[in-house]
Amino acid sequence: MTATENRINRIKPDRNAPIGVFDSGVGGLTVVREIMRQIPNEKIIYFGDTARVPYGSKSRETVVRFSEQIVRFLRTFEVKTIVVACNTASAYAMDILEKETDIPIIGVVRPGAREAAAVTQNGRIGVIATEATIGSQIYTDYIRELNENVTIYGKACPLFVPLVEEGLLEDPVTDEIARRYLAELIDIDIDTLILGCTHYPLIRSTVGKIMGDRVRLVNPAYETARELQNLLAEADLLSRNPPRLGENPHQFYVSDKAEKFLRFANSIIKYGILSAKAVNIETY
Amino acid sequence: MTATENRINRIKPDRNAPIGVFDSGVGGLTVVREIMRQIPNEKIIYFGDTARVPYGSKSRETVVRFSEQIVRFLRTFEVKTIVVACNTASAYAMDILEKETDIPIIGVVRPGAREAAAVTQNGRIGVIATEATIGSQIYTDYIRELNENVTIYGKACPLFVPLVEEGLLEDPVTDEIARRYLAELIDIDIDTLILGCTHYPLIRSTVGKIMGDRVRLVNPAYETARELQNLLAEADLLSRNPPRLGENPHQFYVSDKAEKFLRFANSIIKYGILSAKAVNIETY
Repeated sequence: MTATENRINRIKPDRNAPIGVFDSGVGGLTVVREIMRQIPNEKIIYFGDTARVPYGSKSRETVVRFSEQIVRFLRTFEVKTIVVACNTASAYAMDILEKETDIPIIGVVRPGAREAAAVTQNGRIGVIATEATIGSQIYTDYIRELNENVTIYGKACPLFVPLVEEGLLEDPVTDEIARRYLAELIDIDIDTLILGCTHYPLIRSTVGKIMGDRVRLVNPAYETARELQNLLAEADLLSRNPPRLGENPHQFYVSDKAEKFLRFANSIIKYGILSAKAVNIETY
Repeated sequence: MTATENRINRIKPDRNAPIGVFDSGVGGLTVVREIMRQIPNEKIIYFGDTARVPYGSKSRETVVRFSEQIVRFLRTFEVKTIVVACNTASAYAMDILEKETDIPIIGVVRPGAREAAAVTQNGRIGVIATEATIGSQIYTDYIRELNENVTIYGKACPLFVPLVEEGLLEDPVTDEIARRYLAELIDIDIDTLILGCTHYPLIRSTVGKIMGDRVRLVNPAYETARELQNLLAEADLLSRNPPRLGENPHQFYVSDKAEKFLRFANSIIKYGILSAKAVNIETY
């Protein structure tokens, strides 16, 4: 490395540095999957907080504290950017994390909100998410910043995460619970529905079947990967080097149960995750 | 207080000291309810780890670390004994907590195991619990210490806790999930079934309906309160003073979401819980 390059690297992140991605557990892997599809040259450091999952029923203060610990952990890898791949953490902690962090950081809420505001025709948008995300009103706030003439209906669906984690992705019980949760959104005639929790893309077909063809489903994981690509391109931080043959470009860390995580991860991401390491996140 | 009494108090816990009780969240309140019913003179300090709930899908190492922090917290109140009102923590951490603690400490697993071993007629006992409790084989180990001629069948029921927390105590969805989980226990003709998670007494009627009258349900919460009473009586530590009129004898602490805890607590315990305070348990 020349002296000039070295000086540039000190004032700007290295474009070949990895991207840090975190979630309360396994749900954020749906975001990882989209990043791998859309910008396959990028290396990822993933952290899933499996010792303290779920976040969706916890308070703002607790979720902020957990998120700050994880950002400190990810920064030990000198990541060039951080993706908050958890709707609850995006809802509660983005403001604070952005203030505290001097590298680009993006959450999943804003990209999902932007897409929903752009595609709605009748101005009636539904959001399904955890209790915390719905309670925070964050999707409502972001969407109304972009488009004042829409109405947003939020519905917390606390059983969706345990049903997904139990593997009941296509099952009469999941159908029944989904029908109950979604009934009021059908009644009020929304035309756009945000899957506002990173687990929900895994039951997209169940939700789609119940909502019908007229309702457009927005997957913030997909939108986030697209926005990440734009952000890196604008900052001239896109990696130009595809991973070398035989190199494992991604690393996965969890706060508990690395083996169980690995099984779930390999069912979501077809590329084959070789290992996941456990760390004690409370010490960060 | 005389000098003699003072000296005795220094070498033995005060019989008027409170009892410490902890759980990963709200489930342990079914144990609190039984303690209140059976030994109403006792004062209780309860801690629910609502910031890190649930424990049932987490590893031994993590559950032990969390439990040690909570024991340190409870000891700041100079409790005379500690009740581990969580099956997962009892399964994973009792050995270590007993070694580390110089006051009496009891869990919910041993009392439940003892009752099941005593009441079975055909020697076929079922246990339903979290993944962690079932995986630990702790009920099997304890029961077989007492009675070698029994066979124990464990079945993890991961959706029961979220269904209870969603309030679906009597609901067709809970019926359907319970039928699936319990089918194999019916097939193998058990005559005794341990409700091996502190949430499960809240769906006792659903489980009882599916298992039928021939199967005896064992509630470790009830057995634990009975064993606690015996333990305190033997150590001459039973409180002799009923709470004074107007005095609130119990204190409730949580690591997150004190208000939500309070709503749930007041639906389980009819005595009226006035307040719950939030503490940062990671600092203990």
